[in-house]
Amino acid sequence: MADDDDFVVTPWEVSGDVDYDKLVERFGTSKVDEELIKRIVGHTGDLHPMLRRGIFYSHRDMNWILDAYEKGPGFVLYTGRGPSGHTHLGHLMPWVFTKYLQDKFGVELYFQLTDDEKFMFDLNMEPEDTKNFAYENALDIIALGFEKSKTKIFLDTEYAKTMYNIAIKVAKRVTFSTTKAVFGFTNSTNIGSIWFTSMQAATAFLPTELKGEKTPCLIPCAIDQDPHFRVARDVAPTIGYYKPALIHCKMLPSLAGSDKMSASLPSSAIYTIDSPKEIDKKIGNAFTGGRVSVEEQKEKGGEPDICAVYQYLYYFFDWDDKALEDRRQKCLSGELLCGHCKQDLTALVTNYISQHQEKREKARDVLEEYMLRD
Amino acid sequence: MADDDDFVVTPWEVSGDVDYDKLVERFGTSKVDEELIKRIVGHTGDLHPMLRRGIFYSHRDMNWILDAYEKGPGFVLYTGRGPSGHTHLGHLMPWVFTKYLQDKFGVELYFQLTDDEKFMFDLNMEPEDTKNFAYENALDIIALGFEKSKTKIFLDTEYAKTMYNIAIKVAKRVTFSTTKAVFGFTNSTNIGSIWFTSMQAATAFLPTELKGEKTPCLIPCAIDQDPHFRVARDVAPTIGYYKPALIHCKMLPSLAGSDKMSASLPSSAIYTIDSPKEIDKKIGNAFTGGRVSVEEQKEKGGEPDICAVYQYLYYFFDWDDKALEDRRQKCLSGELLCGHCKQDLTALVTNYISQHQEKREKARDVLEEYMLRD
Repeated sequence: MADDDDFVVTPWEVSGDVDYDKLVERFGTSKVDEELIKRIVGHTGDLHPMLRRGIFYSHRDMNWILDAYEKGPGFVLYTGRGPSGHTHLGHLMPWVFTKYLQDKFGVELYFQLTDDEKFMFDLNMEPEDTKNFAYENALDIIALGFEKSKTKIFLDTEYAKTMYNIAIKVAKRVTFSTTKAVFGFTNSTNIGSIWFTSMQAATAFLPTELKGEKTPCLIPCAIDQDPHFRVARDVAPTIGYYKPALIHCKMLPSLAGSDKMSASLPSSAIYTIDSPKEIDKKIGNAFTGGRVSVEEQKEKGGEPDICAVYQYLYYFFDWDDKALEDRRQKCLSGELLCGHCKQDLTALVTNYISQHQEKREKARDVLEEYMLRD
Repeated sequence: MADDDDFVVTPWEVSGDVDYDKLVERFGTSKVDEELIKRIVGHTGDLHPMLRRGIFYSHRDMNWILDAYEKGPGFVLYTGRGPSGHTHLGHLMPWVFTKYLQDKFGVELYFQLTDDEKFMFDLNMEPEDTKNFAYENALDIIALGFEKSKTKIFLDTEYAKTMYNIAIKVAKRVTFSTTKAVFGFTNSTNIGSIWFTSMQAATAFLPTELKGEKTPCLIPCAIDQDPHFRVARDVAPTIGYYKPALIHCKMLPSLAGSDKMSASLPSSAIYTIDSPKEIDKKIGNAFTGGRVSVEEQKEKGGEPDICAVYQYLYYFFDWDDKALEDRRQKCLSGELLCGHCKQDLTALVTNYISQHQEKREKARDVLEEYMLRD
């Protein structure tokens, strides 16, 4: 992925200061524009704040998906998770939007848990580790309220018989050169990691296999996953499938102040299993746009655009545009101090996570009903 | 595999004039010597002609396998077939020896049909093609008389759930560099082909997974398959398995006079489904060590060492050393003409194939009892 820009975005590495507009150019996707939003709202009846705020901001072939919805044959949703650890808010973000799409369009969702990927990419992981995390993550998925009769969750290692038979068709059409160019692999990359993209592509074609007819597939996901689907889209027509469409979101920033949140730095993210005490501590330690002293902040004002607390409100916890703008102005003017915003965010997050945890516990009872098995 | 020698042996290419002694050096295997043969015969009670004639001539860790047999924990056999077409005599050869080992040692056999491999390596193959050939090949395996209660046959695509979960452990520990060095892959190789060796390695570890205890595994196979198991042996200790042991055979020469028989040149091999008429025609057209005219042959004698008909007798159809040596001398002296040998071989092959075909038909009824399924 190396080029002249000073940031890197691949499915396994996000670093530098991501310029999302440049990423659209680099990846060759399209911006979600007013016309497309209007067309989506024409069906959903309401404008999801993640669209309004430009969080879901990029796409591939969304108009084709809406055509398929309007004229047939309809479409299905596909999203996923690499179970390398517990679920944090950055993971939930696209899932929340996926639920909105499922609710509004009344369509099926295929949810892939790539425990094979996370095992093969991380020398410190055993198959049991990623499998356990996959089931933990599944609880979070179910807790979001996806429609049981229309949602199918699976682990790659457990649904391997079906998945492998699709993946080999993809793998046959992808060269190592392609994976070098798209993912930045080298000769030292292990052959499981090299192979893996064919498993991630396979889910886009799974509904076609299960239904026995070509089925359009829309993938809502963070834009760092796009490279996998560029490969999938190149291959699709040659093996008798539709190219998957995508709608991409930006990545929830780290509490430490930059980039995508990192599972390797637990304090930089809020997990769905965090206690109120942990939430309080993490937000208390978050990077803000505050000045070195209260005096200076009152004088110069804060910097909401680089403030992780403000970003959390913007991306997830305050959908009231007027209230948020008001907060922003008060920060800029020095009227509002960081402690205040942290307190507000802590209350919102604690409340959200506490409700989520209740639903997450109940999810254990119905988990099996969501699972897709060979 | 490129080096100064003028022959190439990989699992997918055998070309040039194979020097089997050099191959032992190149692959780093050990020759089967008198001492080892004596030790094997100590258990089997008889000396298989393929050992006596040096057809099974190379090995890795055979003494360790015999230790495991003598002192515990015993061992299992593993062999396989890439179902790119119908079975020919060159395939049967190592299976016949495998049956001898199963009978004499009373051990289990795992028989892998790599339909995924043959699909991914051949652009002209569809998954249905290699699956169909796999089931055709399975009939030939069963026809050889392997003990039903101790023989487990499976297709990679059908037993993928179990296999994938072992293969990812292998794949994680093998780099692309290794597959470049061992198999000669390039950047243009597809990622399915690159991945595949982890599926072939996985069978060596399957018995350990199924039994829940580390189980020594002996792989009788043609020596062109050794590179896969060199990779498997390197990885095994790092993922908690025993290194598989091997005993290698030479490859049955082509009826056209050189190299391993090629599935892409059907006239160069005799298939188990061939009719007497086809057998007659193929052997009639076989390359021999005969001279350009009867007169010249009577004067100079024939050349049995380059004669495909003689090789077939040597490798498969005449285990009587004295009779074969007699034939050789008569050929060298010009007493015996090629037509005579062709007639003899045709009779032997036709008889063998006809009996095989009867058993092959009966195999259809019991096929399912041999199949290992997830």
